[in-house]
Amino acid sequence: MKLAMVGLGRMGGNMALRLSRHGHEVVLFDQSADAVKKINSEAKGSVAATSLEDVVSKLSSPKIVWVMLPAGKITGDTVEKLGSLLNKGDIVIDGGNSYYKDDLARAKKLAEKGIHFVDVGTSGGVWGLERGYCMMYGGSKEAADHIDPILESLAPGIGEIERTKNRGSELDPRAEKGYLHCGPAGSGHFVKMVHNGIEYGMMQAYAEGFDVIKEKNSQLLPEDQRFKLNVADIAEVWRRGSVVSSWLLDLCAQALVKDQELPQFKGEVPDSGEGRWTIEAAIEEDVPVPVMTASLFTRFRSRTGNNYAEKILSAMRFGFGGHIEPK
Amino acid sequence: MKLAMVGLGRMGGNMALRLSRHGHEVVLFDQSADAVKKINSEAKGSVAATSLEDVVSKLSSPKIVWVMLPAGKITGDTVEKLGSLLNKGDIVIDGGNSYYKDDLARAKKLAEKGIHFVDVGTSGGVWGLERGYCMMYGGSKEAADHIDPILESLAPGIGEIERTKNRGSELDPRAEKGYLHCGPAGSGHFVKMVHNGIEYGMMQAYAEGFDVIKEKNSQLLPEDQRFKLNVADIAEVWRRGSVVSSWLLDLCAQALVKDQELPQFKGEVPDSGEGRWTIEAAIEEDVPVPVMTASLFTRFRSRTGNNYAEKILSAMRFGFGGHIEPK
Amino acid sequence: MKLAMVGLGRMGGNMALRLSRHGHEVVLFDQSADAVKKINSEAKGSVAATSLEDVVSKLSSPKIVWVMLPAGKITGDTVEKLGSLLNKGDIVIDGGNSYYKDDLARAKKLAEKGIHFVDVGTSGGVWGLERGYCMMYGGSKEAADHIDPILESLAPGIGEIERTKNRGSELDPRAEKGYLHCGPAGSGHFVKMVHNGIEYGMMQAYAEGFDVIKEKNSQLLPEDQRFKLNVADIAEVWRRGSVVSSWLLDLCAQALVKDQELPQFKGEVPDSGEGRWTIEAAIEEDVPVPVMTASLFTRFRSRTGNNYAEKILSAMRFGFGGHIEPK
Amino acid sequence: MKLAMVGLGRMGGNMALRLSRHGHEVVLFDQSADAVKKINSEAKGSVAATSLEDVVSKLSSPKIVWVMLPAGKITGDTVEKLGSLLNKGDIVIDGGNSYYKDDLARAKKLAEKGIHFVDVGTSGGVWGLERGYCMMYGGSKEAADHIDPILESLAPGIGEIERTKNRGSELDPRAEKGYLHCGPAGSGHFVKMVHNGIEYGMMQAYAEGFDVIKEKNSQLLPEDQRFKLNVADIAEVWRRGSVVSSWLLDLCAQALVKDQELPQFKGEVPDSGEGRWTIEAAIEEDVPVPVMTASLFTRFRSRTGNNYAEKILSAMRFGFGGHIEPK
Repeated sequence: MKLAMVGLGRMGGNMALRLSRHGHEVVLFDQSADAVKKINSEAKGSVAATSLEDVVSKLSSPKIVWVMLPAGKITGDTVEKLGSLLNKGDIVIDGGNSYYKDDLARAKKLAEKGIHFVDVGTSGGVWGLERGYCMMYGGSKEAADHIDPILESLAPGIGEIERTKNRGSELDPRAEKGYLHCGPAGSGHFVKMVHNGIEYGMMQAYAEGFDVIKEKNSQLLPEDQRFKLNVADIAEVWRRGSVVSSWLLDLCAQALVKDQELPQFKGEVPDSGEGRWTIEAAIEEDVPVPVMTASLFTRFRSRTGNNYAEKILSAMRFGFGGHIEPK
Repeated sequence: MKLAMVGLGRMGGNMALRLSRHGHEVVLFDQSADAVKKINSEAKGSVAATSLEDVVSKLSSPKIVWVMLPAGKITGDTVEKLGSLLNKGDIVIDGGNSYYKDDLARAKKLAEKGIHFVDVGTSGGVWGLERGYCMMYGGSKEAADHIDPILESLAPGIGEIERTKNRGSELDPRAEKGYLHCGPAGSGHFVKMVHNGIEYGMMQAYAEGFDVIKEKNSQLLPEDQRFKLNVADIAEVWRRGSVVSSWLLDLCAQALVKDQELPQFKGEVPDSGEGRWTIEAAIEEDVPVPVMTASLFTRFRSRTGNNYAEKILSAMRFGFGGHIEPK
Repeated sequence: MKLAMVGLGRMGGNMALRLSRHGHEVVLFDQSADAVKKINSEAKGSVAATSLEDVVSKLSSPKIVWVMLPAGKITGDTVEKLGSLLNKGDIVIDGGNSYYKDDLARAKKLAEKGIHFVDVGTSGGVWGLERGYCMMYGGSKEAADHIDPILESLAPGIGEIERTKNRGSELDPRAEKGYLHCGPAGSGHFVKMVHNGIEYGMMQAYAEGFDVIKEKNSQLLPEDQRFKLNVADIAEVWRRGSVVSSWLLDLCAQALVKDQELPQFKGEVPDSGEGRWTIEAAIEEDVPVPVMTASLFTRFRSRTGNNYAEKILSAMRFGFGGHIEPK
Repeated sequence: MKLAMVGLGRMGGNMALRLSRHGHEVVLFDQSADAVKKINSEAKGSVAATSLEDVVSKLSSPKIVWVMLPAGKITGDTVEKLGSLLNKGDIVIDGGNSYYKDDLARAKKLAEKGIHFVDVGTSGGVWGLERGYCMMYGGSKEAADHIDPILESLAPGIGEIERTKNRGSELDPRAEKGYLHCGPAGSGHFVKMVHNGIEYGMMQAYAEGFDVIKEKNSQLLPEDQRFKLNVADIAEVWRRGSVVSSWLLDLCAQALVKDQELPQFKGEVPDSGEGRWTIEAAIEEDVPVPVMTASLFTRFRSRTGNNYAEKILSAMRFGFGGHIEPK
């Protein structure tokens, strides 16, 4: 199929490449002319564009524009601009990490003009070019069906992963190929958002576990209670046959091979929004999510020194017990 | 090799079978003569025994006895009895879920007589017979080396799982085959214990996420903010290419196929000790484990109705605000 | 001073009474004519009004209208209506539990017409009539100064509570009397909101503690490790000289006197918004608030039976271990 | 009455003084002769002793020895030694912060010789000399009754605190005076331990709240969403009439007067054991205590820099997303 990819960063660029490898014609655009040039030279059959107007002029109806930009204002501006350039029946896809409530507003606005909005949540990171991207998307059935060949090309496919038994015909066969039409506009990013909330929790579970293993050699313990354990080997052994095997564990095992002290990392951990939004959604639904909040708060605290809360604690201890902080 | 398997429940029975399939001669013993008879008929080359004394008499030195019993008193009693029956150079293996601090005492006691103690933490559950068991074990190097062929047979092996790149020669090659000599006695169960702590956290991460997805259709939300999402398809789509793919996710996907309301489950979730012990270990080491504790507490609360803490909350609300509980 | 009280429920009615006792003339209005009649008969010098228009006509400039309604739409509608009836220099006070971000919008709207908006967060519950109300408010200095006599009458005053030593002249002397001008519009409800977040955390701390004390007699413990403890006496003893003494503890002690099993409470605990908003604010600020979230989640869970998350946990346990739930 | 005070640190010294002011004769002993000399000169009617033997020789039967030492080995050794020096009917009181399970063992040992053991948990810190000590104690009824005059002198008494209404005759009148016989040996320290668990949770609730208030001026927020709030005034205003008023709040207000940035504190917060033990007890009882654990973990993290768990998180993020940590 023919489509445009707007935004050729690490994600958009690789997606354009993967699409061209699968025979799609991709019109390329990015704020950076260099990025366009680079992907244009790598993606067979791709076409360079110089502006959103140029992008639109190079497509044929129904025109499909995949926007792959960092979440936030720039995505909103781009979708709005596309709304002014496109016409009834055209399709705008937001493949970034937008807030699903923004999707609801954007879809509504575009619908006034008969333009379809599809929000695609994408997981797979830098590995997607080779492994394929796991995608959850929302939008009208009509739009979803129309862009199906694009999504199928981007997705990993069934591959060698063992199939779930007894999946009935009421279930969506696309799920087995790694992409899923979740529901109306906004639902794709919603599901991706929760995916990231789970990811935070899983990461924190491993992080806590490896910390307990590492600190089993801590000076705080009596000497005969200490074990000096090899974290790299432990991560490796769990990869085969254990209940905690996962792709995240594979990544841990890989990272630990080099130097299990992980000197290349400071441990200051950013968060990119989805974790927060998942907690917000959970609170709106009255659903307890203690693991997700604990995971987010660990990241907050990892990025600061001692905070005001901790000083307040020290102040109270001094107040009732005359406790002086340790030097 | 020749060894005895004491305890032929779901775990021990399957292990005896797997060992016999790999050509080992297994002396079988269980409190239940029926269990012995059943496994004896299935495990080629196995030998039935009628008592611990009989077990020991049927082995040749150095005698190897694998104890596979529920954690706790019965394991302790059996190990102690074996201590009285075995001699210098023999090996007692505890493959159950014993508390690692109990191992330290048991190993010390057996060492007085020159008997080796090996503690094996085993992950893999009911799938181990076919997939192999992931094992972490502690004990002397001498004992570990001697029983290596047994462990190799029980382990999954390298299989088709992609190998971690650049594993150096300072790392233990057995880890890639799914078994690992972690360190001295107790360290195997310690590592398995933390494994379970991680497992609790991962399970809770998925559980919270699927709950947020399910409740996105909650009556608490304004109607235009609700999505009716298909949890079975979402679990399935994440299995291919997403950051949250894992074996636990595979199991979720499988369970959800049948009826995504999960009517066959009440949601009262037991815990088997390791989660508690991991938290205890973390506290001894001054390591924060908020995700593990939240996971354990969710299980506690899942097994009761409204607890006293919640009544106290209601009592305070009534006290300061005259708040009457909703009917 | 002369002012109007709009909303004569448990809070507004008592405030009108307290103001009239302090010599203020209160114009009374409520949707319920009965409520107006009742308070009018109790509040000396008060004047009944029949509509917002009537309220406004009975005041003299600068007119002061205190709105004391449940948070949400009705407060917004009333403030908006008052905006159309009042003029430059008049003052609208929202004494309810409004969301502080709503205040920002309302204040801005009223400011276009030169009307002052003051948001008052009020703590003290049903006890305020006698003890006085602790109040935190936001708005212009001009408005805050003008309504000072009203707030001073509603506040508890210095009373017999020991004074904090060395409060310098840069601090606001009103704080010692139990009311405080926190900053611009919205800041009063913001501070009250955090107050409630703290309240949730403190309540949960007591609730957990009393639960641990009560369950020290649990069948789960070995018999020689159990204590049957008197929760009512323990709450009482802590009221004198302990680090955990507080007004909330006083309320616990009072509630426990009757029957320490608290049979009159089910333990299904509502939450009224401020706890959620505090967590939202904390997340916006990157501040970890694990205690506040745990407190809120306990309330969520107290209001449901076993939730979907817990069923997911059971489903996974069945998947990897064949674990059947206990009957 | 006549009794001995062993251990004349900040707590024991002040208790000896308070007892002498109430007319008791106190035999004084401490490892430090200077400490003995100092308290002897201040405590009217007190008697200096030079060893535990000397302590015992200076008392008359039934001899009462109050041990007021830091928890742990030294308390155990002292109680054991006293066990060898005392006789049937004598009373050993441990007023320190011992682990209640140690009490069980110590009481049992002393009981063999007919010596009573009383464990007293004490709250009140450096303020106890003037305000009196809140005490929870365990032991035989006989011993508890015998030492009642001592405890009554140490306790705050009813004072001016409003009395709880309708306390029935089945409740212990001593609770109103600030001391309580909780149950058998060990129960005093158990109740005090939970008291500290609650204290941790309350402290953390305030700490989080003040942090949210302080950071409302954070650069992370849009400028029109920031408030610069006065934490000292807010702490003060809550002291009068609010739901969160407490002694801990009084201490916060006092600490914040000086400099609300709290520059004298680093925010590295020790914990003294009781918080950990409360969590252990809760886990033994299957009681969820998320607030208490979150409070303890905040303290753990306050004492370290970025930990291994956080490095693991960064390593995973790098693995799946190529995310480089911020500089």
